[in-house]
Amino acid sequence: MRILLTNDDGIMAPGLLALRAELATRGDVTVVAPATPQSAVGHAISVSQPLFCQEIDLADGVRGFSVDGRPADCVKLALLVLMKDRKPDLVVSGINHGANVGINVLYSGTVAAAIEGAFYGVPSVAASLAFSQSMHFREAARLVCRVVDQAVARPRGDKSMLLNVNVPDLSQREPRGLRVCRMSIPPSREEMIRRADPRGRPYFWITGGEVPAGPADPESDQVSLADGYVTVTPLQFDLTDAARLKAVAAWNLSLGE
Amino acid sequence: MRILLTNDDGIMAPGLLALRAELATRGDVTVVAPATPQSAVGHAISVSQPLFCQEIDLADGVRGFSVDGRPADCVKLALLVLMKDRKPDLVVSGINHGANVGINVLYSGTVAAAIEGAFYGVPSVAASLAFSQSMHFREAARLVCRVVDQAVARPRGDKSMLLNVNVPDLSQREPRGLRVCRMSIPPSREEMIRRADPRGRPYFWITGGEVPAGPADPESDQVSLADGYVTVTPLQFDLTDAARLKAVAAWNLSLGE
Repeated sequence: MRILLTNDDGIMAPGLLALRAELATRGDVTVVAPATPQSAVGHAISVSQPLFCQEIDLADGVRGFSVDGRPADCVKLALLVLMKDRKPDLVVSGINHGANVGINVLYSGTVAAAIEGAFYGVPSVAASLAFSQSMHFREAARLVCRVVDQAVARPRGDKSMLLNVNVPDLSQREPRGLRVCRMSIPPSREEMIRRADPRGRPYFWITGGEVPAGPADPESDQVSLADGYVTVTPLQFDLTDAARLKAVAAWNLSLGE
Repeated sequence: MRILLTNDDGIMAPGLLALRAELATRGDVTVVAPATPQSAVGHAISVSQPLFCQEIDLADGVRGFSVDGRPADCVKLALLVLMKDRKPDLVVSGINHGANVGINVLYSGTVAAAIEGAFYGVPSVAASLAFSQSMHFREAARLVCRVVDQAVARPRGDKSMLLNVNVPDLSQREPRGLRVCRMSIPPSREEMIRRADPRGRPYFWITGGEVPAGPADPESDQVSLADGYVTVTPLQFDLTDAARLKAVAAWNLSLGE
């Protein structure tokens, strides 16, 4: 099995190295990851700048491709250039330093990289570990790969497989189990903190975003993860609101006066 | 009607000014837009940098808030701070310099800003004009506002209204009509162009992305726009693959050995 591994925390991130080590017992892993941290870049791609790419030694001595771009750029560069003649069977993105559940899925560079893999018809998995003071990436990598093992064991032909896996905080206890669940969509409670720079110019920091503003769906990824479960959410990338398509068509929109 | 207007081409972009002028005949428009061009930044937000915000004069003499951040940041800052006490009834993002159809919807900062508005329960519209040598933004703004008029005339309570509107190239002819249609999801034909910098270091440019790699859905936004129609696609932001949720649950994934 050929595996493309990327992330959004940058090629030097411990979450990537832990996942690489675990994946390496399953297949041939090629690391193509951003040179610098790219948290919350969403599905950004570099259209106005070229991508520089350098083969470097990672902290564990293995080689990897460091790309001066976004997570989704790394997947494009891997599939179109670096792995062109030996296409991966699987794209894995992570392990992210912090959960990617609820609406944060849309802000996540980690998930965007997996979606990019799915654009190209490669089964893809995004993996994240809930934030805590001590991040247990090695144990998280073991858990993520348990899910990956079972996912890749499914009958082939399912090229659009796209999974978002989140591992709960492992610093206090083992996960309570695994849940296949929906992405939570209610808004989060967010704030802007206002400060002034040394010249008196105001600036603002976004904060919050982890706690739902309203009642949360107990079956959702956000609540299940907070309850201590490993969550697995199958994703898709068609943003069409199919349920509303007919209603809007019935508006009889026109361009005339 | 209070309207928040933003974009991803930056606050000085002609597409924003044209749309502002047209929207101003319908309501009270507040412009909060990125200080610099932000094409293809997707749903990036600034979590590691603070947002600076400056009130400036736009080219047409009207005031606007210039934000040193991403399109989605602009919407957050507007809703949480700048318009906190006079929440907008509508968020409009655009007019983008170039279409946002098919998979490009996910790369688009223009669309992300509208999705951000929908996160906050504000009806939102993303608007884009297909690229041509001469961009007819004024005429495009008139067409976009025809759709906006009819959308806001719908019974209220539909807080999750989220529309992606694309206007075809107007430099040759009038639009052939209007189509309510799906987002196209087949992959586009992309390439990486390889060059070398003056020191011989290789670099890569992403190119393509506008032409579907395979057979295109004739009912999709991509094909309808190319055929000369104004396209309207209702969007949603739940990436859960509901159809696959049961199938993955049936895998009986486990964490044990």
